[in-house]
Amino acid sequence: MATRIPRIAADKLLKHATRRAPINLTTCQPCRLRTRPLHTSAPRRTSPDTNPRSASDKPASSNVRTARVAPVGWLVGGGLVASFLALSQNHDTEHLPEASVSPSGDNRDPSIPRFRLSDVRKHGPDSSEPWVTFEDKVYNITDWIEAHPGGDVILRAAGASLEPYWNIFSIHNAPHVKEILGQYMIGFIDAADLGPDGRPAAESIEDPFEDDPVRDPRLITHTLKPRNAEPPNEELDRTFYTPNDLFYIRHHMWVPVVEEAKADEFALTVELPDGEVKQYTIGELKAKFPMHKVTAVLQCSGNRRNDMTRHAGKTNGLQWGVGAISNAEWEGVRLSDVLADAGLNTTPDQPEANSLHAQFTGAEAYGASIPLSKALSPTGDVLLAFNMNGEPLPRDHGFPLRAVVPGNVAARSVKWLNKIVISDEESPSQWQRRDYKSFGPNEGPNPDWEKAPSIQEMPITSAITGVWVGDCVRKGKVPWMGATENHGTTNPCPETTPDNEPIALQGYAYSGGGRKITRVDVSLDGGATWDQAELVDDCSNPATPCHGNKTWGWTRWRYEGTLPVLSLLPTTTATPALPPALQKVGQDCEDGFGRSRGLLGKKDEKNKKCTTLIVKATDESYNTQPESHKGIYNVRGNLATAWHRVKICPECTKGNGKPGGLTWSTGETYGCGFRREAEEVRVGMERAASLVNGKK
Amino acid sequence: MATRIPRIAADKLLKHATRRAPINLTTCQPCRLRTRPLHTSAPRRTSPDTNPRSASDKPASSNVRTARVAPVGWLVGGGLVASFLALSQNHDTEHLPEASVSPSGDNRDPSIPRFRLSDVRKHGPDSSEPWVTFEDKVYNITDWIEAHPGGDVILRAAGASLEPYWNIFSIHNAPHVKEILGQYMIGFIDAADLGPDGRPAAESIEDPFEDDPVRDPRLITHTLKPRNAEPPNEELDRTFYTPNDLFYIRHHMWVPVVEEAKADEFALTVELPDGEVKQYTIGELKAKFPMHKVTAVLQCSGNRRNDMTRHAGKTNGLQWGVGAISNAEWEGVRLSDVLADAGLNTTPDQPEANSLHAQFTGAEAYGASIPLSKALSPTGDVLLAFNMNGEPLPRDHGFPLRAVVPGNVAARSVKWLNKIVISDEESPSQWQRRDYKSFGPNEGPNPDWEKAPSIQEMPITSAITGVWVGDCVRKGKVPWMGATENHGTTNPCPETTPDNEPIALQGYAYSGGGRKITRVDVSLDGGATWDQAELVDDCSNPATPCHGNKTWGWTRWRYEGTLPVLSLLPTTTATPALPPALQKVGQDCEDGFGRSRGLLGKKDEKNKKCTTLIVKATDESYNTQPESHKGIYNVRGNLATAWHRVKICPECTKGNGKPGGLTWSTGETYGCGFRREAEEVRVGMERAASLVNGKK
Repeated sequence: MATRIPRIAADKLLKHATRRAPINLTTCQPCRLRTRPLHTSAPRRTSPDTNPRSASDKPASSNVRTARVAPVGWLVGGGLVASFLALSQNHDTEHLPEASVSPSGDNRDPSIPRFRLSDVRKHGPDSSEPWVTFEDKVYNITDWIEAHPGGDVILRAAGASLEPYWNIFSIHNAPHVKEILGQYMIGFIDAADLGPDGRPAAESIEDPFEDDPVRDPRLITHTLKPRNAEPPNEELDRTFYTPNDLFYIRHHMWVPVVEEAKADEFALTVELPDGEVKQYTIGELKAKFPMHKVTAVLQCSGNRRNDMTRHAGKTNGLQWGVGAISNAEWEGVRLSDVLADAGLNTTPDQPEANSLHAQFTGAEAYGASIPLSKALSPTGDVLLAFNMNGEPLPRDHGFPLRAVVPGNVAARSVKWLNKIVISDEESPSQWQRRDYKSFGPNEGPNPDWEKAPSIQEMPITSAITGVWVGDCVRKGKVPWMGATENHGTTNPCPETTPDNEPIALQGYAYSGGGRKITRVDVSLDGGATWDQAELVDDCSNPATPCHGNKTWGWTRWRYEGTLPVLSLLPTTTATPALPPALQKVGQDCEDGFGRSRGLLGKKDEKNKKCTTLIVKATDESYNTQPESHKGIYNVRGNLATAWHRVKICPECTKGNGKPGGLTWSTGETYGCGFRREAEEVRVGMERAASLVNGKK
Repeated sequence: MATRIPRIAADKLLKHATRRAPINLTTCQPCRLRTRPLHTSAPRRTSPDTNPRSASDKPASSNVRTARVAPVGWLVGGGLVASFLALSQNHDTEHLPEASVSPSGDNRDPSIPRFRLSDVRKHGPDSSEPWVTFEDKVYNITDWIEAHPGGDVILRAAGASLEPYWNIFSIHNAPHVKEILGQYMIGFIDAADLGPDGRPAAESIEDPFEDDPVRDPRLITHTLKPRNAEPPNEELDRTFYTPNDLFYIRHHMWVPVVEEAKADEFALTVELPDGEVKQYTIGELKAKFPMHKVTAVLQCSGNRRNDMTRHAGKTNGLQWGVGAISNAEWEGVRLSDVLADAGLNTTPDQPEANSLHAQFTGAEAYGASIPLSKALSPTGDVLLAFNMNGEPLPRDHGFPLRAVVPGNVAARSVKWLNKIVISDEESPSQWQRRDYKSFGPNEGPNPDWEKAPSIQEMPITSAITGVWVGDCVRKGKVPWMGATENHGTTNPCPETTPDNEPIALQGYAYSGGGRKITRVDVSLDGGATWDQAELVDDCSNPATPCHGNKTWGWTRWRYEGTLPVLSLLPTTTATPALPPALQKVGQDCEDGFGRSRGLLGKKDEKNKKCTTLIVKATDESYNTQPESHKGIYNVRGNLATAWHRVKICPECTKGNGKPGGLTWSTGETYGCGFRREAEEVRVGMERAASLVNGKK
């Protein structure tokens, strides 16, 4: 039995273990075990499961402990970073000793136990006390398994080193991951097993991301491996249907490889509550069932998380801007048709429709479920989709088959779908039961995961995606004012004048459950007064017809007005008073974005007057958005749906040979004069979040 | 052609007439013409309408102009008061001359025209310029007809006096009604037609409310004729199912009389889009279709209007507290079954389900409609109901037949239902097209009624209905703490101590569309911190089983905590500073309620520290309530769903022979120590609203 040090960590750990250790994942689709060898291009043909025990009786990953088939068999979810971050708040991590093994001897703390790698290997996946190594240290991860975002998946690394996996999964290159790991340290690797660099011999593993698709360079990438990226604002809703190349990407692993020529052989298994199993290849699905089109948004539960972080407090997860949402036309067969063909007799008005669930599993073993009532609803439009915007699904979006659950959180629209189980339980995956949930503002970093319902229908939200001010508007450099140039990419606006500035805004609004957006309110003065935006009637445009029984797509909106405050106050200390009507809307720039740019010195900046643009939407049920993120704050940063605020500040520009002038700056949106490079935007988002989190 | 005076009013009127004059009704079910003689106890047997012209082609009241059958044939909707109020804001009403006719002569302004009553009678219902009289004045109401909440119904009074009707419809006893009427004055009644009192001979009309049911005296009555009343808070949600006698009442006319013995002969006409008509008696409905039970809330769109008035601004309509909502078990047949039997072949996933509407008409001609998709949804649970909480529908709630549209605004659950028309249009009634809508905060007293969608599914809301503090809690005088006495009715609490006061709260939460309440957050410090309330699982109680495919009923909640601030500061000027943590939650009482009670003098009151209790709810779609009413303000005061705030203040009590002490006061909720008589509560609500409206 290994000694665990330090005691304090063990005690805290125990506390976590007994009250169910916290699981904090980033949103949408956390990573899952890859259960087949890499680079196998043939689709996995799942043979019917003749075991009468329903899949619902066992976790989706329950076979992990006994099978170790993949060359890269150990994966840490994107959410691990978040988990580590969450745990790190509660633990003193200074106990992690510095390594100090020189070729000439072991100078590390002699009071800490040593283990041979042969010992470590004994604590493999089948051991009751699994261990891993990192650098020159040994960790007993037994108590972490339950808290691990990937569940048993962590055991793939048991008995060996984490490093090859973390080196590839760049998502682990985040603060505090090691701090959390430190909780579980039990000793050092014996010096006899260390090389001249004080490390054990490096294992070489294949890069599973090697075959990932090439992505559009315009995407703002939050993590490279796995890829998580959102389109830049100016592209997000430029068109009603987000182009496939720019549709936001939320991955937890690499993208499964399915040869296009063999896509029709890709098989889907359907298991009914009585244990009966039926299998359909994609070719059979296409031949047997009528095709349907559905216009639907997919939105990550973490969309606008960055907003909640900056305005309410630290959140765990990828710091998405307003772009973890996109809109597409999906085409496929109805899930309800397939289930009926498979032998399911339940009708939507039977109690079973409410008590049963349709569990989806993807080729990478990600699991999630929806209530059967949604699957069976004649107006629910749940598809097994093959096509997206008139083309076969791109690999990034589930080729060759994905569930599309309109109106629900995207985490339920499982990609690379190969199994459906109808069960009396929700998907046993932690992504269903723990992660994609939201909580009350009273719950801290360890919410009661059992208590909250899994996110299904999405609440109403909206966002500003484009802001144009002054000459941008006067000269028509707004796309929907007939601008022909690629606005915002090359032409910063000329100097503007400080009064009666015209402003143009655009954005999207969306509500879950198929509820149509009926009104979008815009304020240019921080909420003191409101006006209504024009809703773009894309569905009446013959080029972008809308499909489906309800309004599953987003509503784009546009607004033209005049800025109420445009006061770059003199840089002298003799600051003239603003007229009373303007004082209330003239606010100092508070967040880091606006201030750091331009030529104003510190002294000037405090005189810089800003105003806050706001958008909020209302849907046909007259539900609307909460005003601030404080009342809906949750540590996961899920469902950040408060009024979207963009602070806009006047700013001096460099002349660059020409005369300098006054422009407007916002760190959050883009348009004429506001263009930033994608990477700069991403860094800005991260920086803002880390400032809030008290980290640099 | 009559001369209209003064010009200024006519000009303003024209402005209204050209942009569609504003219609402002109080909520739920405005008044409508009574089309059969009073006191006819036999049900009206509507013969099948063989006219191929659908009812949707004509307004529900289109036959008013040609028929004048009722002894009381002219009705003004409850909403007229509101309309008048709305218009009065924009018009100078000082032009209304004072009457001055003595027996000895006519001393009234000689420049104003005189009309004989015989002239007035020529301007009857069929005239192109209908007139009415009020007191000694004559009004040309031609331009008001379109703006009249009751539409053509106003013509019933044409050619005669308003007074007999207004005398009975006590709802007109409200400020400013005459001011609005003054807009349309064209002259005086000729002195030759006036009696010694300067008025024409009074007409005697029957009181149509004579046969109204006797109501529970505990109801808080907003208007007597027609009756509009809500249960007192302490009774509202004391039980999961609101007792029939206490279920809130929203009428626009008297209650139709249907003999119990002949109820089964009451007929319902169903008209399909192809013009086919089928008729069912209640007896036939009961015999032919399976019975279903549904647990469902009915809620007025004006519930909590009083809250919006006090916290955001003037609103037009009955100043409901939190009680224009109740919960019941309804029993009847499914509308979808009846429609299918009548020959409607539409299925929920056909486009027609979204483009067609089910129009309901009540025996008093009130009209409203719902989308056919709701009517046909296999999980929509729309009933034609006969029973309520296990008994036949009370007359106040639609006996013998009403529509029950769970999850939607109560205005669509038409009472005394006798006609259903499936049409490609919404109900043509103004209650569908103009009144029961909500608007953006930018829209003033004359919103664009066409632009907003009719309210159907209700947004999420919640309310505090009971507050107990100090000894009330310590001594278990809270109903769900086992209190046996009728709390709050007789026993003011003994003095409490000013620190660590226990507090108990209860209330309800509800969301439309069948969306289950999943969380109720409570704050005792004005939103600085939050905790979660306990949700009462009434549906699991065998005594109160829940019925239906979705969660159509409300969720009751309870909360126990400790008040963060309990500081009745010394009455001396040497006010000790509060600890910093408490300063932010200690607020002066701002509204009129708390201050006006108790023994504290003016000087003391400004030192009185209060805190604000807040409740907000979240539903399964994670929609939640907006923080304040400012962002959802609309002149109609519809859908006042902001966080429910109750300010609670410490207060000195009179000793009454015993030592005085400290209690807690809130003008809004009731419980141990907070009991008020219903009438006092109603007056308080009115007073608060009028304070906001800038009236006395």
